[in-house]
Order: sequence, then structure tokens, then C-alpha cells
Amino acid sequence: MTIKEQPKEMTRRQFLSTVGKVGGSVAVFSLMGTMGLLSPETMKAAEYEPPGPNDLHLSGRGGKKIIILGAGIAGMTAAYELGLAGYDCTILEAKSRAGGRCWTVRGGTSEAEIGSGTQTSRFDKGLYFNAGPMRIPQFHVTLEYCRKFGVAIEPFNNVNESGYYYNENVGALSGQKVPKRAAKADVRGYVAEMLAKAVDQNALDLPLTAEEKMKLVDYLKVEGDLNPDLFYKGSQRGGYKDEPGSRLDAGVLRDPFDLKSIINSGFGKYFSNEYEYDQQMMMFHPIGGMDAIAKAFEKRVGNRIKFRAEVKEIRQSSSGVRIVYTDMASGREQEVKGDYCICTIPLSVLKKIPADFSPEMSKAIQSINYASAGKIGLQFKRRFWEEDEHLYGGSSLTNMDITQIYYPPTDYFGKKGVLLGYYAYGGVADKLGAMSYAEREKLALAQGAKIHPQYPKEFESSYSINWKTIKYQEGGWVSYSANDRKTYYPTLCKPDNRIYLAGEHISYITAWQAGAIESAREVVTDIHQRVMKS
Amino acid sequence: MTIKEQPKEMTRRQFLSTVGKVGGSVAVFSLMGTMGLLSPETMKAAEYEPPGPNDLHLSGRGGKKIIILGAGIAGMTAAYELGLAGYDCTILEAKSRAGGRCWTVRGGTSEAEIGSGTQTSRFDKGLYFNAGPMRIPQFHVTLEYCRKFGVAIEPFNNVNESGYYYNENVGALSGQKVPKRAAKADVRGYVAEMLAKAVDQNALDLPLTAEEKMKLVDYLKVEGDLNPDLFYKGSQRGGYKDEPGSRLDAGVLRDPFDLKSIINSGFGKYFSNEYEYDQQMMMFHPIGGMDAIAKAFEKRVGNRIKFRAEVKEIRQSSSGVRIVYTDMASGREQEVKGDYCICTIPLSVLKKIPADFSPEMSKAIQSINYASAGKIGLQFKRRFWEEDEHLYGGSSLTNMDITQIYYPPTDYFGKKGVLLGYYAYGGVADKLGAMSYAEREKLALAQGAKIHPQYPKEFESSYSINWKTIKYQEGGWVSYSANDRKTYYPTLCKPDNRIYLAGEHISYITAWQAGAIESAREVVTDIHQRVMKS
Repeated sequence: MTIKEQPKEMTRRQFLSTVGKVGGSVAVFSLMGTMGLLSPETMKAAEYEPPGPNDLHLSGRGGKKIIILGAGIAGMTAAYELGLAGYDCTILEAKSRAGGRCWTVRGGTSEAEIGSGTQTSRFDKGLYFNAGPMRIPQFHVTLEYCRKFGVAIEPFNNVNESGYYYNENVGALSGQKVPKRAAKADVRGYVAEMLAKAVDQNALDLPLTAEEKMKLVDYLKVEGDLNPDLFYKGSQRGGYKDEPGSRLDAGVLRDPFDLKSIINSGFGKYFSNEYEYDQQMMMFHPIGGMDAIAKAFEKRVGNRIKFRAEVKEIRQSSSGVRIVYTDMASGREQEVKGDYCICTIPLSVLKKIPADFSPEMSKAIQSINYASAGKIGLQFKRRFWEEDEHLYGGSSLTNMDITQIYYPPTDYFGKKGVLLGYYAYGGVADKLGAMSYAEREKLALAQGAKIHPQYPKEFESSYSINWKTIKYQEGGWVSYSANDRKTYYPTLCKPDNRIYLAGEHISYITAWQAGAIESAREVVTDIHQRVMKS
Repeated sequence: MTIKEQPKEMTRRQFLSTVGKVGGSVAVFSLMGTMGLLSPETMKAAEYEPPGPNDLHLSGRGGKKIIILGAGIAGMTAAYELGLAGYDCTILEAKSRAGGRCWTVRGGTSEAEIGSGTQTSRFDKGLYFNAGPMRIPQFHVTLEYCRKFGVAIEPFNNVNESGYYYNENVGALSGQKVPKRAAKADVRGYVAEMLAKAVDQNALDLPLTAEEKMKLVDYLKVEGDLNPDLFYKGSQRGGYKDEPGSRLDAGVLRDPFDLKSIINSGFGKYFSNEYEYDQQMMMFHPIGGMDAIAKAFEKRVGNRIKFRAEVKEIRQSSSGVRIVYTDMASGREQEVKGDYCICTIPLSVLKKIPADFSPEMSKAIQSINYASAGKIGLQFKRRFWEEDEHLYGGSSLTNMDITQIYYPPTDYFGKKGVLLGYYAYGGVADKLGAMSYAEREKLALAQGAKIHPQYPKEFESSYSINWKTIKYQEGGWVSYSANDRKTYYPTLCKPDNRIYLAGEHISYITAWQAGAIESAREVVTDIHQRVMKS
């Protein structure tokens, strides 16, 4: 798609409901879109027209009370946007902090996973890792809130050719620590060589003219760094065994791996991680921890949050909603009433709470699975990845259980650092999650040391997360099958009388804060429209 | 190359001359290398053993005086390292500032190019662009000095899939602004499809087993995002014409370009810029401007610099060196004497200075060419690339004269911004350089507006550089032909009696500050060895 080919239909969704504002802004944005001034995502953001406080006196809705369940990103977005419009919101939050999965682990962070004892982080002051979301694509609405709230951002190093691939039991390259740049140069080189020769020798039946075939071969030569005879014989792109230097030191290129070794290594399948739409560079994160976003929201809606309020019942009638909760400070059962409820509780938790949902909604909530995910932060007394290996942020990937190591994309040249010793999903995450905190640490250190022998000497302390056993979350993110999307998801998206679901799970941007924000904004628009009509 | 296969021969160069220190440190580093603890570049850095001040009393070299010509990165590195060892250095610098090509243009920067009037930057406070080097690979020694000197760094966004390709006169995609991610997804998709089908149908004679062929096809499926029938039919990697959002908004993928259009577009040849060893992510730059490095050196050696001292003659005899220069403050001719001279003046300037070089050295200096390069900084009153297009740093590439636009990789969410409106090389740079400052601005605005129609409305002011006509530089960087490297370069690398050349031009890391630093360090070692022996 080129920008000149922007979609014409810009008002697909029903956001622009506030009569009187609609005509003008759509016309202006439509024109900007046609002129190539706006990206699709900008136009999407532009579609959200917050309910303006100016029409408060017209609607008489000032008295409407909204009960929001969960002070995560979705819940706080809803409270923020509704608050701007003069709605009276109350957020019930089971934890003693806001943010939900937008959670940064620092020194002193303390939590007991379900079925385990309390784990307390001993990280030094200033060191942290993001237990939940840790990166933001440029086009996500999340960055618009960062901009609006003054949350400073810096790049998240999602691509670093100085990181490594390390696989076991894959033939000749088993147990070798291979810089990403080396594996990529060789695979790209051999693949370009194969195709360039085939095209050059007219071995393929391609719908191309002779001139186009020549252009294709020219491209492949550059893409693979092939020699004039179309052979890949290694490339500076893969690095040197002896770096070039001053005077007569021209450097010595590394020897490429042979074709069979690199094909059997399994490294090629790692490359495309970085190609995914929402994993491509540039990516960003708030300076000082992802929870800067949660704190920025909390600063604006914090006075509406009741912390340590564990929801026990969700009730509704034709006239309103009633939420029963335990005030965990006093241990007393309490209740709060409102006109509408926005429920952002993850379905994995919600399904266990007695609620007046329709049978269809209950069935849908019961039927959805959540993804397993686990991380461990390892504090080292020295940033050896920077000092010894010239590796500043980015990741190393492996077929060991630790799956991947992420180096901190912040505080370069700092004395100490916390890296992600593993970030695992699925069955591997379950396996690690079933271990004690000490066993997880032991595994992360033993496997990580195969890639970084500095581990044992430099290690100081760890903190690990298994999202499936984090209370009030019980999962990394929603995991819909294609059938779930068809059978249950449409029900989850519809208001159930006076209760509206919101969160990453009510979106096609699952596992991202942007999904939480966009779904909350859509619910806000819905409720506002309903109030205006009533 | 895997880290396990580290080069065994670590002392190739003659750095480690200080007897007594050598044995131990080489042994330790050698062991670390074998253990996989050190990258080749670290081992290289480790090879540099600065002359220690402790052996000053042994050598009687305290009285040796070194005259350094040029207070660029090479000259200041030499003064810094020699100063630590107690040598008495004087740096003559023709300009009124240190840093040479390590130069950041800010509000108030003022310079007259050769043959032109004075140009003064009207950039707002805090805004800048780096006229010379603007990015640093992770493995360059430059970062080691940043670390040592406390120069804070941040990523330089050398890869950004949200940037654009824009080519004219290339067939169907002429004049279209195509996001990099879209072009890459399509080219990778079609190329993977061609090869996957050929391999799958056994159309190629490959030295692979059936199982290896299957692995190759599996890789190509993932690499190109092919469907089960091995067709490329578009991919989320290329982006959406309608982004996915909340509730039922699953998004609509862009339609891929057809194969012929994308082959004829010429975009494919742009991809490999990012693959080059010294252009791969992650890259870095000092926060606040590249000249933070120059200033950090200047803080340490500034009291040894005579500014506005234009070298007129370089003389030497068997007993010492004598440099004649014009003190431009007074207009008077002066001279300074020393034991040795380190000359970092670019050859393009040096060749015009009368000097007691050997005929071979004179001939070599006269014979070398310098690259043309030009940049323009454009200040805009609004960061429309961020606000309208969700583009945070990175570049757009084009076959127009402007060649490329770089968006500022810093100060995200700032109110205003300076982007690089062009960064041109070779003949195009000469063409732009021959224009007046106003004409360059006009061209940059007219061509840039084809990619960003916001230009005319948001533009505020410009500042342009043509390195060929910057006094005392006269070129972007040295440009050796293969024949130059064979015929002349070895002479340039040898001391000419008491005069030693240093700078990026005396290295195989030309055009980089690392070349300047490494060559200066090698000269420091040389002189120290010579003094110790004398």
C-alpha cells in the first residue's frame, strides 16, 4: 500500500457520535488522508472523538455513575476519557497498585504467586525489568498517550545483529554461539546465490522479461553480496575474525559456514521475528520502566481507584449495576452501585466471579484460554554484554528452555544491569512456571552461561514471573483460536445489558496495551452514545 | 565465525611494546578469547597498551615534545594518550573550534564555505544536526572513549520500517511513497516463493538431501510469509490499509504490489544498506550531538590546543621538527619546534602545505582523492513525521538528488525538529555543493515535499554543508582506489623521518572516527617505542 492509496472509507467504526463535531473533523482528516499526510493509524486515532465536557449540560448525564473493574491500562483509559467528559467513575482494583500487566519489577517489588511463597526483588536502585509489555510499535495509540502525558520514551532495541543464535542438537553448529549477523549473511548469501543462478540460467519459468530478469539478478547480487559469478563466498556483513584497523590492518573476514551447516542450524527461522508488523524497528519504551505509563494514568485517575478491592459479585438489573467486593484492608464485604459497568478483568479471572451475565456471555467467558508466559530478571554486577561483547540491548535466541535473553535497552555504560534471563511462552513457560523461584533462577543461570560464560562470576540476584500464577491475572494475554473468534468473540464484544467488557482481549491487538486502550475508548463512546440517547 | 573460533594470533600488530606488561596481559586476554569471553574488537582494543606514566622516569622521555597538527579526533586522541604518559604536546588547529569533522551544527553556527559567503544557523536552542559523523557502530573503539569520558549515548535509528522509498521514473511505482516495510515484505515474499517452488519441484541441482531441501523450503515459507501452497499473497509484515483495532475490527491488509512493479521499482537495492557491517543495528550517537565526543577530548587536552593557527610550513631535520604557522588572531607568522610531529591534516589540505616530506611521501599525499559529501539540516516548527506519520527517526530513500532524508533520532515528542533534508555523496553532492545556500534549501524543500507534503507549511530555516568546500577539510573522507591502497597507502602509513600521519585516512576504517582514533593510538605507540629505544 502506498500512502497515495489511503483507504477512502474512514468512518467504518461508530466512534464519531457526537453530533455537530462529526462533519467538520471527518472532512478535514479525509482530505489530509487523501493528500498523503496521514498514516492509516493516525486516521484511526483521529476517528476517536472523546465525549466533550461542553455538551455535559445538554445531556443531563453528569449524574451517571460508571463502575470500572480493574485499574489496568484499559480501566484507567476508560476512567480518564469518561472523567474528561464529566462522568463519575469508580475503579475497583484488587491489587495494591495500578497498571495490571503494565508492571515494572524493581528493588522491593514483592508478590506471592498462586501456590508459592512471597518473592521479593533485591535489585539495586534504578535497575528494573518490565514483567509485562516491554516495547511499543511506533504506530500504536499507546505512544499518543505517552506524548499527551509527557512520558519520555527511548528506543527498544528489538533488532541487534550483535546478539547471538545458540541452538543445541542441530548438526554441525550445535552448541555454537553465532552472531546474528553471521547467520543472516550466510543464509541470505546462499539463498540469493541459488535463485540468482537459476534465474540467470533461465531454469525457472518466470513471468518476467529478459530485462526484468536481469534486474532481479542484480537485486540478488546486492541482497546476497554475491561475487560477479553469482557465488556467495562470505561477506563483511557477517563480520570479521580480525577487525580492520589502522594503517596496514585490512582485517580478515570470517569464513562463512557451509550451506548444509547453516540450513540444519535452524537459525533461519529466527530471522522473521523481526519482520512481523508489530516487531519491526523502530520500537520504543518509556525511559525508566513501562509503568511510567501506568503511573501517568494513575496521576490523572488515581483518586477514583479503590485499591485492594477484590470483586466478589457482579450484579445488574434493568436500572443499574451493583458490584460486591471485599475491602481487603478491613476484610469487610462492601458494595458499590452505578449505572453501567466496564469490566476489564481478564477472562481467566472473570470466569470465576459470580455475575449476572447472559448465558451466551457466560459461556463465552468460560470458553476462552489465556497464553502462558514467563520472564526472569537477572541482576549482574557488571554489564559484561556491553563491556566484553559490545552488545547494547537486543536479544539472543536459543532452542534451550530459556528461549531468549534480552539485554537492557537503557542505561548504557551503567555499572550494573538487569537482563531478561528468559522470556518463554507456551509449554516451556508452564514448565518453568511450575518450578520454585530458586529452581527457575538455577535453570536460567545454567543455560544462559552457555551463551555468556560470564554469568556465574557476575550474577547477583533474580526475580521471576509466571503470568499464569500471578493472582488477578492468571495468564499472559488472551489466546483466541480461529473458532473462538467466530463462535465466542462477537458475544464478548457486545454489551451485556449494562456491562461492557474492555481490555486487550476485546481487540485484534491482543497482548498489547494498544488493544486495551482502543477497546476502552470504544466502550466509552458506546456508553456515551447510550447516555445521550436515553 | 563463531566465538569459539576466535583468532589465535592476537598480537599481530606491534602495540604491546612496553616490556614487562606484555606477557601477563596477552596471556590473560588470550585465555579470555579462547573461552569466548571477548569479541574480536574487544581483543583488538585490548591490544592497545597505552604508554604508562610509571615508566616515565626510566626513559627520560619526559622532555620529548610532540607537535600535533589538527585538533580533530585523531589529533586529540594522540594528545590525550601521550599526555597520560607525560609527553609534552602542542596541537595547532586552524579553526577556532576543536573536533574537525566531528561537528554539530546548532543555532549560531557560522561558517563561510570556500567561494561562498558566511552562512549562520538560525536553529532554535537545543536543535542540531551532525554535519560529519552521526552514528557509531557498537564495536567501534569510539564507544570505549564515550564510556571512559562519561559521554552519554542513545540509539541512532539506522533502521526504521516506517520510513519510505520514493523513486521517480521506475515504472508503475514511480512517484509513490512506499513504506519500507511494504517493499521489503513483497520482495522477500516473491523471491522466497520463486526459490521455494523451484526447490520443492526439484528444479535446481542442489547439493542437499531431501530432508535438507525440506528444511530450506520451511525456512523460505517463514522468510517470505508464504501460504501452504508456497505462494506469496501479501503479509501483515507489509502493513495494513486499515489497521486492526478493538472489538470486531480485524483490520484489512494492504494489497501486495505485483512482481513486475516491485522488480522495476528499484527499491530492492536499498535493502542492503542496512546489512553492511558498520550500518547494522544497533547503532548509537551521543545525546545532544556528536560533538560531545570532541568536547570530552577537548576538556582533557584543550590547554594544549592553539586555535586559529594555520599551518604554513612543515619542516624537519635529523634533530627535530619545526612548524611555521600563522596566528590568525594577530596575523603574525610564528613557529613551534618539537621532537616529533603527528600530522592529522586531511591529505586534501596537506598537499598544499610546503613540507619536508620524502619524494615518495609527497607523491603519495598528492595522489589521493577525497569523497564528496553534503548535508542540509531543515528546521520544522512541528515534528510532522512523528505526529502525522508515526515515524520516529530513521530515513527515507529516493533516487531524487536529495538521496535520503533522516529524521532526528532524539528528542522524541519535542515541539520542533531538525531533519536531514539531504545527505548526498559523489556527483550529486558536487552538484548541490556548487549551488548557493539558498538554492540548496530550495531544492531540498521542493524534492522533500514530494515525500512529505507538510514541508512548505512547517519549514522554518536551513543550514547546509558541502564538505569539499569546508575550509581546512576539503572533503568528506578519504577515497582510496584499490590501486591507491597498493601504490601509495603503504608510504602514508610509514613515518617520514620525524613526521607521522594519523587520521581516518591512515586506516581501513575510513570515514569513521574509529579510524582516526585507532591510527592515532598506533602512532602514539610507535613514537613511544622510538623514544624508549633512543
